[in-house]
Amino acid sequence: MLSNSRREQGEFEFLRQLIERLPTGRGVVVGPGHDAARVRTNGKDWLITVDSQVEGVHFERSWLSLAALGRRSFRVAASDVAAMGGSARFALLDCGVPEYLSLPALRRMELALVEEARAWGAYVVGGNLHRSLEVAVSVTVLAEAPRNRVHRSGARPGELVVVTGNLGDAGLCVCLLRARQRCPRALLRRWQLPPRRDRLGRALVERQCVSAMIDVSDGLVQDLHHICEASGVGAEVDAGSIPRSKAYQRLAAEDLTLALSGGEDYELLFTVPPKRLETVQQLARREDVPVTVIGRIVRGNRVTVKQGSRELELERLGFDHFAR
Amino acid sequence: MLSNSRREQGEFEFLRQLIERLPTGRGVVVGPGHDAARVRTNGKDWLITVDSQVEGVHFERSWLSLAALGRRSFRVAASDVAAMGGSARFALLDCGVPEYLSLPALRRMELALVEEARAWGAYVVGGNLHRSLEVAVSVTVLAEAPRNRVHRSGARPGELVVVTGNLGDAGLCVCLLRARQRCPRALLRRWQLPPRRDRLGRALVERQCVSAMIDVSDGLVQDLHHICEASGVGAEVDAGSIPRSKAYQRLAAEDLTLALSGGEDYELLFTVPPKRLETVQQLARREDVPVTVIGRIVRGNRVTVKQGSRELELERLGFDHFAR
Repeated sequence: MLSNSRREQGEFEFLRQLIERLPTGRGVVVGPGHDAARVRTNGKDWLITVDSQVEGVHFERSWLSLAALGRRSFRVAASDVAAMGGSARFALLDCGVPEYLSLPALRRMELALVEEARAWGAYVVGGNLHRSLEVAVSVTVLAEAPRNRVHRSGARPGELVVVTGNLGDAGLCVCLLRARQRCPRALLRRWQLPPRRDRLGRALVERQCVSAMIDVSDGLVQDLHHICEASGVGAEVDAGSIPRSKAYQRLAAEDLTLALSGGEDYELLFTVPPKRLETVQQLARREDVPVTVIGRIVRGNRVTVKQGSRELELERLGFDHFAR
Repeated sequence: MLSNSRREQGEFEFLRQLIERLPTGRGVVVGPGHDAARVRTNGKDWLITVDSQVEGVHFERSWLSLAALGRRSFRVAASDVAAMGGSARFALLDCGVPEYLSLPALRRMELALVEEARAWGAYVVGGNLHRSLEVAVSVTVLAEAPRNRVHRSGARPGELVVVTGNLGDAGLCVCLLRARQRCPRALLRRWQLPPRRDRLGRALVERQCVSAMIDVSDGLVQDLHHICEASGVGAEVDAGSIPRSKAYQRLAAEDLTLALSGGEDYELLFTVPPKRLETVQQLARREDVPVTVIGRIVRGNRVTVKQGSRELELERLGFDHFAR
């Protein structure tokens, strides 16, 4: 989140690497360092992931009802498996409960999460409740893996960079809420309930028309950098083409910072060989999901964003740890 | 934990029921309300569970090193699948990290957890790190299910009640630490590193010599009550036969409170048809795990503890919500 200092973001990048460097072994098809792990047994593959929403870190209680928190928590976790083409089947709920939280409130949160999971075709099969200082909802999702595999590492020079939906709304919403400014209802709803992209994600993987895919949770530039790093390529993004909502354009005008780095968009970001673009567009129309070509994969290892012929200085926007 | 008020324990019993009453469906062989859920796809069953260790709730930082916390966190979560005869294969780590925690300390915790998982035959395949106010380690374990199924609900009148290891050490350790009393090294180590009972649990299920099983996490009486409630039976426990360590007997003398209700023992508690007892004892010897017959399943729905001919008044020990 933008409210975190860049130093802290760099530090978390290091923490993330602790997890990404875990040793792997038998049955581990795809280990740490991806949106979800892919594990195999008896020839059957599963995707498994965990994500959490913690009060004071990811949200404040005044930003959403507990029912909305339940739905959001499931969608945030399920977004990781959607980006690998998985079908969420089972979920576990691990919930930290402060003393002041009433039982009916907790029950509303839980029921909303169960209902959201059902809408995705998944059952909440168990969980764990414990006391904590703040509300902390951790959701584990177990998903059936698609036959084909699309990871972060398949991008090749010449391919197109494509993103679903709009970017920056959630980041702008969080900035406004933290600054105690009025936040338009459209932005708030967008943050509260991340988009559902599992059907399109699955279709893209099944039809083999994407070479690399990730969900935009850290912000466009950061997540595109994850794809480039894993694939050993660079990328050029055309700033003017980055899809932004009317609310975003009205409030932020030409400022792209939050669309580039706000994070928590939970849109799909993927790379497509040019001749497969039409299929991608057909699938997206069928699922009623907007898709936008925002750039191109190039040789090298840099992610650059161009506004006309001018290159935006990402370092000045705070992306200094890309220097590594 | 005993430090929680009984009112709170009753409240958490209610919270637990929120989760136990979740709807189940296709592919859910065993849903909420067991140590772990059992899910099926393509004819292959998995056990899945999540458990967490939260600073200020389950432990204080001065009680153990971060490496010890990593090992303990895995064992606590894996104990749930051990009680269903499962073989832990994969794990996910979700970790709340306060700002003051150093990266080397975090790395030690993570590596110890990875190492512990490996010793059980499991890989840590991914995870998630986020800021939080306190250290919070949540571990999801995915385990291969045994062919046979043993749950909480199979106990029948006339069967023997059996427990592994000693009871009360962990509860006594936590009481001493909370009261800032000197805690003997043996008790501290016992709390820091719960016993490993997965091999015996698996053997008991595979050889079909137990009718119901659970791990003792809430305390003997509470967990035996869980078995009785699920099986529609009662139980009589002989207080004198409850296995206690030398350290426990030296410090608590004849006071059985913590052995009955201290919790966090992570021993196996199971019911055995009398003619299968010899097999159980053979298997336990092979795994070098002590087992003790502590009572018998009876008709009815009450759990009673008898000292000679006198019945202990469990209500006075705080088990008032058994009145339901």
